Amino acid sequence: MANSQQMANAIRALAMDAVQQANSGHPGAPMGMADMAVALWGRHLKHNPTNPQWMDRDRFVLSNGHASMLLYSLLHLTGYDLPLQELKNFRQLHSKTPGHPEHGITPGVETTTGPLGQGVTNAVGFALAEKLLAAEFNREGHAVVDHHTYVFLGDGCLMEGISHEAVALAGAWKLNKLIALYDDNGISIDGQVAPWFIDNTPQRFMACGWNVIDAVDGHDVEAVAAAIGQAKASADKPTLIVCKTVIGKGSPNRANTAKAHGEPLGAEEINLTRAALGWTHEPFAIPESVYADWDAKAAGQAAEAEWTLRFAAYEAAYPELAFELSRRMAGDLPKHFAQVAVDTVVAAHTKAETVASRKASQIALEAFTAALPELLGGSADLTGSNLTNTKSTPALRIEPNGAVAKTEAGQVGRHINYGVREFGMAAIMNGLALHGGFIPYGGTFLTFSDYSRNAIRMAALMKQRVIHVFTHDSIGLGEDGPTHQSIEHAASLRLIPGLDVWRPADTAETAVAWSVALSNRDKPTALLLSRQNLPYAPKSDLGDISRGAYILSEPAAVGLKKKAQAVIIATGSEVQLALAAQQLLAAKKIAVRVVSMPSTTTFDREDTKYKQLVLPAGIPRIAVEMGVSDFWWKYGCAAVVGIDTYGESAPAGVLFKHFGFTAENVADTVLAALQRAR
Amino acid sequence: MANSQQMANAIRALAMDAVQQANSGHPGAPMGMADMAVALWGRHLKHNPTNPQWMDRDRFVLSNGHASMLLYSLLHLTGYDLPLQELKNFRQLHSKTPGHPEHGITPGVETTTGPLGQGVTNAVGFALAEKLLAAEFNREGHAVVDHHTYVFLGDGCLMEGISHEAVALAGAWKLNKLIALYDDNGISIDGQVAPWFIDNTPQRFMACGWNVIDAVDGHDVEAVAAAIGQAKASADKPTLIVCKTVIGKGSPNRANTAKAHGEPLGAEEINLTRAALGWTHEPFAIPESVYADWDAKAAGQAAEAEWTLRFAAYEAAYPELAFELSRRMAGDLPKHFAQVAVDTVVAAHTKAETVASRKASQIALEAFTAALPELLGGSADLTGSNLTNTKSTPALRIEPNGAVAKTEAGQVGRHINYGVREFGMAAIMNGLALHGGFIPYGGTFLTFSDYSRNAIRMAALMKQRVIHVFTHDSIGLGEDGPTHQSIEHAASLRLIPGLDVWRPADTAETAVAWSVALSNRDKPTALLLSRQNLPYAPKSDLGDISRGAYILSEPAAVGLKKKAQAVIIATGSEVQLALAAQQLLAAKKIAVRVVSMPSTTTFDREDTKYKQLVLPAGIPRIAVEMGVSDFWWKYGCAAVVGIDTYGESAPAGVLFKHFGFTAENVADTVLAALQRAR
Repeated sequence: MANSQQMANAIRALAMDAVQQANSGHPGAPMGMADMAVALWGRHLKHNPTNPQWMDRDRFVLSNGHASMLLYSLLHLTGYDLPLQELKNFRQLHSKTPGHPEHGITPGVETTTGPLGQGVTNAVGFALAEKLLAAEFNREGHAVVDHHTYVFLGDGCLMEGISHEAVALAGAWKLNKLIALYDDNGISIDGQVAPWFIDNTPQRFMACGWNVIDAVDGHDVEAVAAAIGQAKASADKPTLIVCKTVIGKGSPNRANTAKAHGEPLGAEEINLTRAALGWTHEPFAIPESVYADWDAKAAGQAAEAEWTLRFAAYEAAYPELAFELSRRMAGDLPKHFAQVAVDTVVAAHTKAETVASRKASQIALEAFTAALPELLGGSADLTGSNLTNTKSTPALRIEPNGAVAKTEAGQVGRHINYGVREFGMAAIMNGLALHGGFIPYGGTFLTFSDYSRNAIRMAALMKQRVIHVFTHDSIGLGEDGPTHQSIEHAASLRLIPGLDVWRPADTAETAVAWSVALSNRDKPTALLLSRQNLPYAPKSDLGDISRGAYILSEPAAVGLKKKAQAVIIATGSEVQLALAAQQLLAAKKIAVRVVSMPSTTTFDREDTKYKQLVLPAGIPRIAVEMGVSDFWWKYGCAAVVGIDTYGESAPAGVLFKHFGFTAENVADTVLAALQRAR
Repeated sequence: MANSQQMANAIRALAMDAVQQANSGHPGAPMGMADMAVALWGRHLKHNPTNPQWMDRDRFVLSNGHASMLLYSLLHLTGYDLPLQELKNFRQLHSKTPGHPEHGITPGVETTTGPLGQGVTNAVGFALAEKLLAAEFNREGHAVVDHHTYVFLGDGCLMEGISHEAVALAGAWKLNKLIALYDDNGISIDGQVAPWFIDNTPQRFMACGWNVIDAVDGHDVEAVAAAIGQAKASADKPTLIVCKTVIGKGSPNRANTAKAHGEPLGAEEINLTRAALGWTHEPFAIPESVYADWDAKAAGQAAEAEWTLRFAAYEAAYPELAFELSRRMAGDLPKHFAQVAVDTVVAAHTKAETVASRKASQIALEAFTAALPELLGGSADLTGSNLTNTKSTPALRIEPNGAVAKTEAGQVGRHINYGVREFGMAAIMNGLALHGGFIPYGGTFLTFSDYSRNAIRMAALMKQRVIHVFTHDSIGLGEDGPTHQSIEHAASLRLIPGLDVWRPADTAETAVAWSVALSNRDKPTALLLSRQNLPYAPKSDLGDISRGAYILSEPAAVGLKKKAQAVIIATGSEVQLALAAQQLLAAKKIAVRVVSMPSTTTFDREDTKYKQLVLPAGIPRIAVEMGVSDFWWKYGCAAVVGIDTYGESAPAGVLFKHFGFTAENVADTVLAALQRAR
């Protein structure tokens, strides 16, 4: 008991000292959750600080990421490669201790948190990944996938709508190995939460099929540890443990006030807090005995060693499964992927089908989901519209007893009905990707990328391979009208740093888009796909599609022998318009090159030589895309055929005409540009 | 009873006929909710079809907007100016019957719905507006504001996270005049919802302080009508009525299937449905007796006439209140607004203070909230950071009995603690604006505009005066790191059609931004504000700020007599950098003009002459903004000093240097551009 108190106080001291030193940060939450952390990290968490990549470790998510000093303290104290100097450099440039925990920067940080509500939703993804991998890979007597996902969260996470989506799906999926500890301190930034947060949280979670352990004293390590033990026994429900805590616990004047949340306590209050806690050590000084109590290296190594033995036995009994599990957790694609990708693209080219690009996506997915068991699809209640399902991806279903249902062939579900929860889907996909073992993809209408936008951004910031299938792009969606017609979305997705965006024109480009998205280990991708049919764009060479833009058609293709006088750049459904305009202009002896640019983000990474080859200097460029025109000026365009207002409700063909998306208008725009250039 | 059935069947027939004629649309939901509609619109709804603008009408929101034919049928049948021909033109270009209901297109449509979850959240805004106006304007014996807000919603709305935010706030605010009818049909697009939607919805709503009337037969008009009557008696809680329904009710083969949701029934099934319903009339033919049963014109006129009498009595007793209420509901600013605006801007200019632009915003708000009682502020739990509160805006608080608390001076709350619910806040603000009587504004960090993005878009689509206060822009936010640093947000908000975006540089520009935002009746505005202090940018003239961009400093200001050789365009916090670079370049005899461009969207609406005056042809333009550079090429820039990666966690000053936001780098960039131009 004395040990537990010292262990918790070490966190409190490090948190307040680091925030003070940085002169910025959040001391209150780490101080309030310190005892919960002792209970979890000191008594239950299965992890190996010397190998943060151990496949079967428990996952820990700090959903209230502003409490980052709690996590940094725990990683430092338990033995991760996070020296004290890093804690002293809290919130400084290029330290391993940024203001909010960032995956990829700090060993042991499983996901980047800070944007509230997303951490707990990532955690649902982690827990789902574990459940699915266990169902797929474990065998009688060989539980090689068998770990928990723990999440700490605060009232901020619970107020965010996305938490409702996460909680609802965790309940529906009966994620019994997901254990959430709620830091119930009754304070948010604006003060005592009562006027704006009256949720009966236990009742709310029970309404979504959770097991709830209510009214635990969050400062009683034994009580919290016992609750976690009880939660681990849950066979068919995720568990919420409501820990009643005091924000800034230990600080005589700041505890239980909003003032403890987001600023340093100040030198004087820190002294008072040291005295109140009986913590007599200098700033950043931790007694050896406390280090010893926290040290999890030996236990972690033993736990991993024990697992390694078990995995060896599994490998002996099921060598192929062991190989596959290792491969998938490493994020490596199977060896035959490259060939499958080539075959899929070539087949598309050979068939030259006229289909919607959402259908082209499904055709590509048929091949890729057959070849890649790690592909885990889904849709936010638009499966039949997004066409995200394939013959290889049965729907995920959960048995009443909590087990993952299997098909008659023994297959585990690989297509997820996320319900109408776009943001939740995106953040769960981030969790699935972070856990490892899966390449998640999920669909909705492009317009509703707005709903999930910050989770798409988080995938890019975390460099995670998550694939968004956004169908029904632009006014081609037709009668559903402006609420459903994406206008600014293609352009605004391209502005998210680190996100690849593809808007393919036909079956071959769509297959390439998928293959590049799957190959890019460190990038999320958004595929923007049409509702309406698109003719195949004849092409002589498939090799350059993957560079994001390529010369699709030269003047010679329309019978002109001269060099191009202008370039039409088009994407997706507008490539056919560009080709038609090229024909119209050829009749007037105007020679035009058509460049198909399915991925501006990919093309932008090309070398200057290739860029100049595709878009030669000295002749005008005209961009054609059914979206806001502003984006296209970056390519030095002389004119843009775009749409800068909202769409309308009408059949697609009527709208194309209404908004000027006709070959005639594109040709006229080229002519006008040429005239201005003279 | 027989009448009720015919009334409901008229809706069913119109819905299936119109969808069939359009060959696109959603028949299932209107057919399933037809009886609920009879109960509400036939028995309870207080409205006047001959005056859809009647101030004290009940508000009706169809949150499951894909059921638009339900609403169009009701508007047509009850006597709104929506002739049968419009129903026959369902989903056609420029009809009054677009695919989803659009406010401003169709009389009687209170809000645009379709993006799920937002309608019910708008409804919370409507109900809050009513409650606040009633508290402010009603007097003993004079209940001139006294109406209900009704909302129909489906399981799609309930799965969306935003519904949780809306439900939680409606409970906290004890919106007893909000009555939601849930179309509980157990089907969503992907099929029977059980595998992905296990919420115990009544329990969930009760957990948020709602009154729930469960298990009402949604096809029993009397039962639904009785439940509504019961709900209207609620004194201190909003009410959810759970109506058990059958999607596509009446269709022998499609009812209770997902197939009824989003496609025409087909001629054959329509015939079968007609037979099953005993509806023998031709397509679009409604018997006179059914029209007569539905006709609400006389009752509506009588209701309004009775209210008009009451309002006259109120006006006699409280002429000033009556004038103010009428003015506010009309959306007119008070006469003295123009003078207040001028005074505020001039005062800012005279004081020339160095403050953060979020503080400049609060300074402007002090004046505007004092002058405009319709300004209703708020923050998503960041009040002290967003600085959205002023001396004139006490916090909204609700008494245990459900009444709106008043200050000692008798004032009603005017600043809302929305909790950590950005999307909910934005959609509630849309509802407040649509109701009338308020100009809502609300704050969060700019990065979290991602969370509310689709509601911002909806405000723009609906042309509503809603003001978003987005503070802590870009890397100036400092140590909180990349999750909290907006990089792509300024640019991507500018892409939303119809949204005005301001990123002011100092106190005067901030005051102008506020005054323009308040004056723009038909536009939402986003104000992007700094965390860090910004020096006042000296200026000779204030008149052109409102044009969105203006010449801030000519070469003469730095002692050069020649004409500008280049233009630096800067926004917000980077204007000071541009001015410093201008100085550095002057030392090298390079003459540079500095253009401050606080609002690109506003500037883009200027005439060509002014544009050319500010940005003259023939000299290079260099843009400076701490955001993605892509956006700036539209102004024909030769170079952009921007940031195209995520930020870092470090003090702001360190980051500015790290990312090249120094006067030296700006000056060097100008020099390089001039060299290239030679």
